[in-house]
Amino acid sequence: MDIKIYLSEKQKVVEDALEKLMIQAVGPFENHIQAMRYSLFVGGKRIRPILCLAAGAAVAKSANTENNLLPVACALECIHTYSLIHDDLPAMDNDDLRRGKPTNHTLFGEAGAILAGDSLLTWAFELLSSPNIGTLTPEQRLMIIHIIARAAGPHGMVGGQALDIASENTRFPFETLQTIHKNKTGVLITCSVQAGAIGAGADREQTEKLITFGNNIGLAFQIVDDLLNVTSTTEQLGKAAGSDAELGKATYPAYFGIEKTRTLAKEAIERANDALTGFNQNADPLRAIAEYVYTRSH
Amino acid sequence: MDIKIYLSEKQKVVEDALEKLMIQAVGPFENHIQAMRYSLFVGGKRIRPILCLAAGAAVAKSANTENNLLPVACALECIHTYSLIHDDLPAMDNDDLRRGKPTNHTLFGEAGAILAGDSLLTWAFELLSSPNIGTLTPEQRLMIIHIIARAAGPHGMVGGQALDIASENTRFPFETLQTIHKNKTGVLITCSVQAGAIGAGADREQTEKLITFGNNIGLAFQIVDDLLNVTSTTEQLGKAAGSDAELGKATYPAYFGIEKTRTLAKEAIERANDALTGFNQNADPLRAIAEYVYTRSH
Repeated sequence: MDIKIYLSEKQKVVEDALEKLMIQAVGPFENHIQAMRYSLFVGGKRIRPILCLAAGAAVAKSANTENNLLPVACALECIHTYSLIHDDLPAMDNDDLRRGKPTNHTLFGEAGAILAGDSLLTWAFELLSSPNIGTLTPEQRLMIIHIIARAAGPHGMVGGQALDIASENTRFPFETLQTIHKNKTGVLITCSVQAGAIGAGADREQTEKLITFGNNIGLAFQIVDDLLNVTSTTEQLGKAAGSDAELGKATYPAYFGIEKTRTLAKEAIERANDALTGFNQNADPLRAIAEYVYTRSH
Repeated sequence: MDIKIYLSEKQKVVEDALEKLMIQAVGPFENHIQAMRYSLFVGGKRIRPILCLAAGAAVAKSANTENNLLPVACALECIHTYSLIHDDLPAMDNDDLRRGKPTNHTLFGEAGAILAGDSLLTWAFELLSSPNIGTLTPEQRLMIIHIIARAAGPHGMVGGQALDIASENTRFPFETLQTIHKNKTGVLITCSVQAGAIGAGADREQTEKLITFGNNIGLAFQIVDDLLNVTSTTEQLGKAAGSDAELGKATYPAYFGIEKTRTLAKEAIERANDALTGFNQNADPLRAIAEYVYTRSH
């Protein structure tokens, strides 16, 4: 399969669904909803929602699986987007550029950006619990809400971000870097895969294999992001290159150098692929995404 | 019934449940969880969780209703607490004091406070969807998650806060003040009552009456808060008195003067009580809370 065609097709599926589900900017809260929409539609690879759909496809029992999973996929993208808005704030990483465009707070002010993030996070749970969309069972929905909330909260993404901020300009052991990476990025990626599996009715063995796949893709993804921050230009990245070093952040290249870091990414991708042994060709999109994550590092 | 004894008993019930459910501050995210715990346990009337329990008690069919509702009540308090942490930020209302104590960001920094709020919000949904607590049906839980997410998000509390910030130092019609009040404060109070009703298995007619009760209590609550901001000292309030006027915020007293504002609060309380006609003595706690909200204005 051609991964670029697959990704751009699924990007469009996700963006069309977001556009259909997303609140329109009318009424008394128009400016606020515009701020939410700006970051949601400013671009992005949509990797988390696509992983959710691809994991669902890998175990799908019904032709409706993708449609059923779309609100879940959209909720994941909303949560990812909120996390970027808050990460970019002056009080956090203080970034002016994201995806080659002005960050939310440079356009809507700090208060506006904080609130846009708050609303995207909250709206994700509104979407996941909405009685009007999708045909997942109440039990599937509750389980999906639970794993997403856990992955996004104090023991997951926000915890990781808090530790990342607290660790700037300090020396800390490699284990701390792993904890930061795993929580700040890895858990939401794993949970995207897992949510797709649950929504598609995967059995326990399939789910466990897909979680292993997700853990390793998440790790590879973050290692490659670290690499790109060192090896790319600001233009290529769409955000400030070298910003990690400037903020005194520990990264894989800082610990291991560029070549060894690339090897570590490759090993994680291999473990991800190994987890898919036993899955048929319906898992090819997942395999292609794994390959794609690795090729980004070159 | 003695409302003060009732409130202090239920406060303790809620705080004990929060303490039991709340994550302990150990492990790599210790500082972050300490920041969450600080604001959650720094005090507060616990009015939203108590309204949830009291609404449940008004229609309870089982002796277990209160226990079933406690995780819901705790989630409501987490969401309220997160909203206070973000409202107090320098980019928002820039308050140093809350409940007579330093605000979150003065102790944990801006980044720390933003993240503590993010985590409390996310953790509320983790709690609401947890498979290990309470015995509500999956359908009840999903409905409760949905109404809470809706009340707390872009069409509710955060939307109201965004409009409040955007309207500072501008002249706007009374209808805008009503929209701000209703969304910033009212909807979460109504939804606390409604969540209690759903969790206790209220029928449609009971639920509608309780929603009317909630709407009017929410309105009275905000009117009284406006009044207290004008008529109290900083010491009495535990936060900066007169801060509304200083920030150029529109308030009920600014539109109507103090006496007329008090009358409007009284009328809202009367409508709240009227909505409870037909409920038996199990609704007495709700009636007493209504009375209590009004007496705070003197």
